[in-house]
Amino acid sequence: MEADGFRTLDEKSLVEYIKATPALSSKLGNQLDGLQIKEVGDGNLNFVYIVVGSTGSLVIKQAIPYIRCIGETWPMTKERAYFEARALKEHGHLCPDHVPEVYHFDRTMSLIGMRYLEPPHIILRKGLIAGVEYPLLAENMSDYMAKTLFFTSLLYLSTTEHKRAVSEYCGNVEICRLTEQVVFSDPYKVSQYNHCTSPYLDHDAEAVRNDNDLKLEVAELKAMFCERAQALIHGDLHTGSVMVTSDSTQVIDPEFAFYGPMGFDIGAFLGNLFLSFFSQDGHADQGNDRRAYKKWILTTIEETWNLFEKKFTTLWNEHKDGPGEAYLPDIYNNPKLQLLVQKKYMENLLYDSLGFGAAKMIRRIVGVAHVEDFESIQDAGKRADCERKALNFAKMLMKERRGFKTINEVVATIQ
Amino acid sequence: MEADGFRTLDEKSLVEYIKATPALSSKLGNQLDGLQIKEVGDGNLNFVYIVVGSTGSLVIKQAIPYIRCIGETWPMTKERAYFEARALKEHGHLCPDHVPEVYHFDRTMSLIGMRYLEPPHIILRKGLIAGVEYPLLAENMSDYMAKTLFFTSLLYLSTTEHKRAVSEYCGNVEICRLTEQVVFSDPYKVSQYNHCTSPYLDHDAEAVRNDNDLKLEVAELKAMFCERAQALIHGDLHTGSVMVTSDSTQVIDPEFAFYGPMGFDIGAFLGNLFLSFFSQDGHADQGNDRRAYKKWILTTIEETWNLFEKKFTTLWNEHKDGPGEAYLPDIYNNPKLQLLVQKKYMENLLYDSLGFGAAKMIRRIVGVAHVEDFESIQDAGKRADCERKALNFAKMLMKERRGFKTINEVVATIQ
Ligand SMILES: Nc1ncnc2c1ncn2[C@@H]1O[C@H](COP(=O)(O)OP(=O)(O)O)[C@@H](O)[C@H]1O
Ligand SMILES: Nc1ncnc2c1ncn2[C@@H]1O[C@H](COP(=O)(O)OP(=O)(O)O)[C@@H](O)[C@H]1O
Ligand SMILES: [Mg+2]
Ligand SMILES: [Mg+2]
Ligand SMILES: [Mg+2]
Ligand SMILES: [Mg+2]
Ligand SMILES: [Mg+2]
Repeated sequence: MEADGFRTLDEKSLVEYIKATPALSSKLGNQLDGLQIKEVGDGNLNFVYIVVGSTGSLVIKQAIPYIRCIGETWPMTKERAYFEARALKEHGHLCPDHVPEVYHFDRTMSLIGMRYLEPPHIILRKGLIAGVEYPLLAENMSDYMAKTLFFTSLLYLSTTEHKRAVSEYCGNVEICRLTEQVVFSDPYKVSQYNHCTSPYLDHDAEAVRNDNDLKLEVAELKAMFCERAQALIHGDLHTGSVMVTSDSTQVIDPEFAFYGPMGFDIGAFLGNLFLSFFSQDGHADQGNDRRAYKKWILTTIEETWNLFEKKFTTLWNEHKDGPGEAYLPDIYNNPKLQLLVQKKYMENLLYDSLGFGAAKMIRRIVGVAHVEDFESIQDAGKRADCERKALNFAKMLMKERRGFKTINEVVATIQ
Repeated sequence: MEADGFRTLDEKSLVEYIKATPALSSKLGNQLDGLQIKEVGDGNLNFVYIVVGSTGSLVIKQAIPYIRCIGETWPMTKERAYFEARALKEHGHLCPDHVPEVYHFDRTMSLIGMRYLEPPHIILRKGLIAGVEYPLLAENMSDYMAKTLFFTSLLYLSTTEHKRAVSEYCGNVEICRLTEQVVFSDPYKVSQYNHCTSPYLDHDAEAVRNDNDLKLEVAELKAMFCERAQALIHGDLHTGSVMVTSDSTQVIDPEFAFYGPMGFDIGAFLGNLFLSFFSQDGHADQGNDRRAYKKWILTTIEETWNLFEKKFTTLWNEHKDGPGEAYLPDIYNNPKLQLLVQKKYMENLLYDSLGFGAAKMIRRIVGVAHVEDFESIQDAGKRADCERKALNFAKMLMKERRGFKTINEVVATIQ
């Protein structure tokens, strides 16, 4: 045990912990004999245990004071668990259909107990690699993003509530710094952490490091990430933070949550769908050329944004006389102006989303942490071809993003 | 005395307070008999006492829990004094030549003891009304703004320090809300607090309330004010917050300080110089047509921005290998890119400054708090003429600000 009371649990000590914690043991119907416990932390940072008993189940997630996939040489505050628990609760309150319930949080132990998203829930990224269509994905993710972002923005909050929340989440700065480094910095410089499908992409990676226009754009995006407290964002909304079945969509792992630009979440999700799209040729085989699936991904990208836009502006219209102080009804009370204002807001949000989406794509190809979509393509030459197409698309997107008025125009550049 | 230990001082109780406070009495050489005390709070919010003894002097500023010029019906946290004292110290540390020294701060009493800016120091606004040229003004104000803004931005601070400071200043939210209301909202709607030179400007004020394009722009500026933590700004940097002699420039009254957009400070100062410019015709008389003075004001506007730009980028170059993490040397290490990046940064900062400057001008003509530059023009018709010119210029500026690449182009639209 550390001086601060923290100790890393294992399968055995976890049972003792659960026994001593009514909020957890009650979820297992207080039947604690013969619990099945499995550590499944495939993520990069934390330990995740699935706990299944005869009359109930739950998941325990514990943060440790370093980055798991790197080791103790890269320390990382375990306070991230506190922000994850808070964000799960706040986003869960706003969008209970798409966020797992939190049963218990222990700050000393950096430990969260939450609903076990039971099979057939799988990580969306794995479903995309397998070529599975999720008919509700766009509908559900647009719902999640519209609600979590709208209700934590100044369109709904008073500035008093907003600044109080902004202040609190400033505490998650170490995690923000990790994003700053791995998303906005390392891919644009020589770094010991970077890697790419070598030697195929060596020149492409070098070209990124020598692209002045790209570096100009990424600086602007980084500044926005660091300075702009627009809403309580998830902060890590890639396809590995979403669990799905054909009729359920659940967003997990908001440990990177803070008040930042909305486009960072939307871009993370759309950017990772684009990565999946570009990886599909690497997964095509004689039985399945993935053509129809690629079309489904692009349609899902379009629908996600378009439904998001519709739902977000609908919330705005519904709450225009609410507590939010950004657009006071006495000023923005004429329908024509309301339309103008919303059009401009959504246009800017699209630009931001495309820019951040592009940044998230680039970093997954030439940065430290890659995605299974590409990594699971065995043939390195084939993988590099897929990655290069994704990279070139992302570079174009980051530079030209203000030229797109709709998501359909973006998608049209691919087809 | 209130439950929290606060009590409003007057001339008499102030002497007792000073006697009991070594940090203050020592500044008066501990000679406390026959002190001359004068309340000079010509500002809108607080009480300011000048205390002069036989061997020393000081100023005492006390915040009260409401807005002085309105009365107890408009409560306002006296915690503003805490943020004023902090900002005086932080900005004073960065730019000691242009910020009065703080001798003492008492949070319970919301009371600041600071250097008395002795005569011939006067409030810059009064000097401008009198038609006095200040040859060092542009030099000194550009110095103050470059240093205070650069060193509190991510160009110099690590994100760890920056987020810690941002979080702290989120506490000054009540004061931010006052700005949101009187600068970004009230002028664009019917409000009991608004007034204008009536009936002359009634239609102009109405036109502001009906100008969709203007309301679109002001919404964007308001969002930036609320969301963007770019640097520790003064927050109220009009010409009434600057005291001057021919060889000294001192910035007082940063009680509105918080982490906000830099352009809000630069715009406040430039916008108030433009107000002074447009008021000059109302102060012209047979002895002085003010033509040369108007030219001096415009030159001062140009020089303030141009010197600011030069000093700010010089600081940037000097500290490019420093603690700031916005533009890492490993990424932005080639001279051409460094130039590109700085050009874009300064262009955006100019747009922001022009936008905020315009907002500050408009609110002084159709909002709650007017400026003496115009108020002191006795003839209402003449005053309205001056104000209308200023208002039309400000409206143009807010809408067209992205069309100006240099401050000289802005000034050229007037000449
Ligand atoms: N509530 C849950 N139900 C089921 N599986 C979960 C749950 N939370 C996490 N997992 C599994 O654990 C893995 C890692 O969880 P995650 O929260 O993403 O951790 P990390 O922060 O380390 O990335 C997920 O990919 C998923 O497979
Ligand atoms: N340090 C000082 N030295 C001399 N005069 C001062 C000083 N501080 C304030 N004053 C005088 O008091 C007036 C009000 O001070 P200010 O700080 O602007 O208060 P408020 O916040 O109420 O506007 C100023 O306009 C100036 O005349
Ligand atoms: Mg994860
Ligand atoms: Mg995680
Ligand atoms: Mg003042
Ligand atoms: Mg003041
Ligand atoms: Mg640096």
